[in-house]
Amino acid sequence: MSVIILGHKSPDTDSVTAAIAFAELQKALGVDAVPGRQGELNPETALVLEKFGYAAPELVTDVSGRKYMLVDHSDIKQAPDNWDQGELMAIVDHHKIGDITTGNPIFFCAMPVGCTGTVLYKLYTDLYKKPIPEKVAGLMLSAILSDTVLFKSATCTPDDKAAAEALAKIAGISDMMAWGMEMAKAKSAVEGVAPRDLIFRDYKDFDMGGKTVGIGQLELVSLDLVADMKDALYAEMEKVKAEGNRHSVFLMLTDIMKEGTELLAATDDPGVVDKAFGTALQGRSVWLDGVMSRKKQMVPPLQKAFGA
Amino acid sequence: MSVIILGHKSPDTDSVTAAIAFAELQKALGVDAVPGRQGELNPETALVLEKFGYAAPELVTDVSGRKYMLVDHSDIKQAPDNWDQGELMAIVDHHKIGDITTGNPIFFCAMPVGCTGTVLYKLYTDLYKKPIPEKVAGLMLSAILSDTVLFKSATCTPDDKAAAEALAKIAGISDMMAWGMEMAKAKSAVEGVAPRDLIFRDYKDFDMGGKTVGIGQLELVSLDLVADMKDALYAEMEKVKAEGNRHSVFLMLTDIMKEGTELLAATDDPGVVDKAFGTALQGRSVWLDGVMSRKKQMVPPLQKAFGA
Ligand SMILES: [Mn+2]
Ligand SMILES: [Mn+2]
Repeated sequence: MSVIILGHKSPDTDSVTAAIAFAELQKALGVDAVPGRQGELNPETALVLEKFGYAAPELVTDVSGRKYMLVDHSDIKQAPDNWDQGELMAIVDHHKIGDITTGNPIFFCAMPVGCTGTVLYKLYTDLYKKPIPEKVAGLMLSAILSDTVLFKSATCTPDDKAAAEALAKIAGISDMMAWGMEMAKAKSAVEGVAPRDLIFRDYKDFDMGGKTVGIGQLELVSLDLVADMKDALYAEMEKVKAEGNRHSVFLMLTDIMKEGTELLAATDDPGVVDKAFGTALQGRSVWLDGVMSRKKQMVPPLQKAFGA
Repeated sequence: MSVIILGHKSPDTDSVTAAIAFAELQKALGVDAVPGRQGELNPETALVLEKFGYAAPELVTDVSGRKYMLVDHSDIKQAPDNWDQGELMAIVDHHKIGDITTGNPIFFCAMPVGCTGTVLYKLYTDLYKKPIPEKVAGLMLSAILSDTVLFKSATCTPDDKAAAEALAKIAGISDMMAWGMEMAKAKSAVEGVAPRDLIFRDYKDFDMGGKTVGIGQLELVSLDLVADMKDALYAEMEKVKAEGNRHSVFLMLTDIMKEGTELLAATDDPGVVDKAFGTALQGRSVWLDGVMSRKKQMVPPLQKAFGA
């Protein structure tokens, strides 16, 4: 049975495209690997796969008895079910080091950059010295544009920009910013989408000081797009919070043009927002200027506020 | 304050030389880094440092309030005290993925090869494209010869051999096997050494199914070297077991010429040896033919036997 490569739950463009790109690299190295995904494609990812001619990878949420590799995460909460009942072969990531452990030595490469696509670019080019196929370069470029919000995110590094430029050349994309805006608009598509699906479009659960804290993020070209939906979103967040025995559910409404986030909060302890960001909730939300990155600007201050 | 780079507790040659070599690489990358060590040098490591003109790195066992990097391990039991009170910046390793986690993205590179020196060779040459100074190449070569027991260990991979050959050229060492035998003899030096020091010369504690299990290893050019010391070694192992509330203390007396290990066992459950290796203890020891690697041939079957 092929080695299955999976990104995190509630997959984003990076998780899906990194699974495909790392599977291609593994095949070039002689490993029989196939990409998978742990959940539905978001509209941005669907557009990216369509543009470069890929079908959606196989849906796989349980890896018991299988050989597998992980991309774009290294923590148990985001890993497939029964992660410890399969054989983990490799991890490629760009997040904080998670709590997954192994019984044997494996390949684990994480770098403090803005996107798994950037790490994969270095693996292809520098470590394994394999040519990047044109369409795979298109996927990796798209992931970098998505994860770094067109290079605006606080997580973006010079390595991400350099990789994106090199990948755009290989992929034959002359105006990558135009392609990035097209992706951003697809990512912003909210009309007719159920509030629950919007919350889970790019959602992660974290363990903060022993409490489960969920954080979803919607990247929008304008907050006007969700102006009429906030009541519905908030009601659904309360449901998600209750169902999962969560302490808090946050939804980041990130305006990528204004470069900031309106944070919606359903929480047992509203004071935690003030503690984390130095700005108190006004009712159920607060505007956080300059905050665009969940990983770099939301999780660390919240973790500190939760005493984790 | 400089970033301190540390190998595991009870450091072996790989842990000490990898700290020096990774510090040199960091300096070449513009990071103010210095190597350290968590314990005394073994006789082999002392010989290696002397040959290539290095002093013993600074003794550092606590990293609270410091920026630091780890080499040759990624688990808490082998990490410096207060590992979570300092800022971990990077990990380079070749063991199973341990339980250290971080709050921020860092550089983490582990590969399933026989030695951290081999991973560092790839980082220098492929990923960062920095020249390896002659004396640093000598250190890394020595680590590979040591960790792979002159390429005989089950952990040795083609990558280790290729790295060693390239490093021998850079270091100007024409007969690396002769140098490896010289190191092996130094490693075998037991005369006049206290039993306790022999047990801890290359020693690691593991968590196996919730129990603390210590495994030391002596690599010997002949078991005759310790024939008269077994009673004293065994008595000391019982003390180490009692002091640390350990379930078991094992000492591998590995004959690198005969390619096998006499395993001494001080344990609450002698049956665990039979369960792990399919050969029962005869009194307090058993000969395990072909077993040379703690990491690959001792830890995994024991962990299984302990139900971990
Ligand atoms: Mn990502
Ligand atoms: Mn080592």
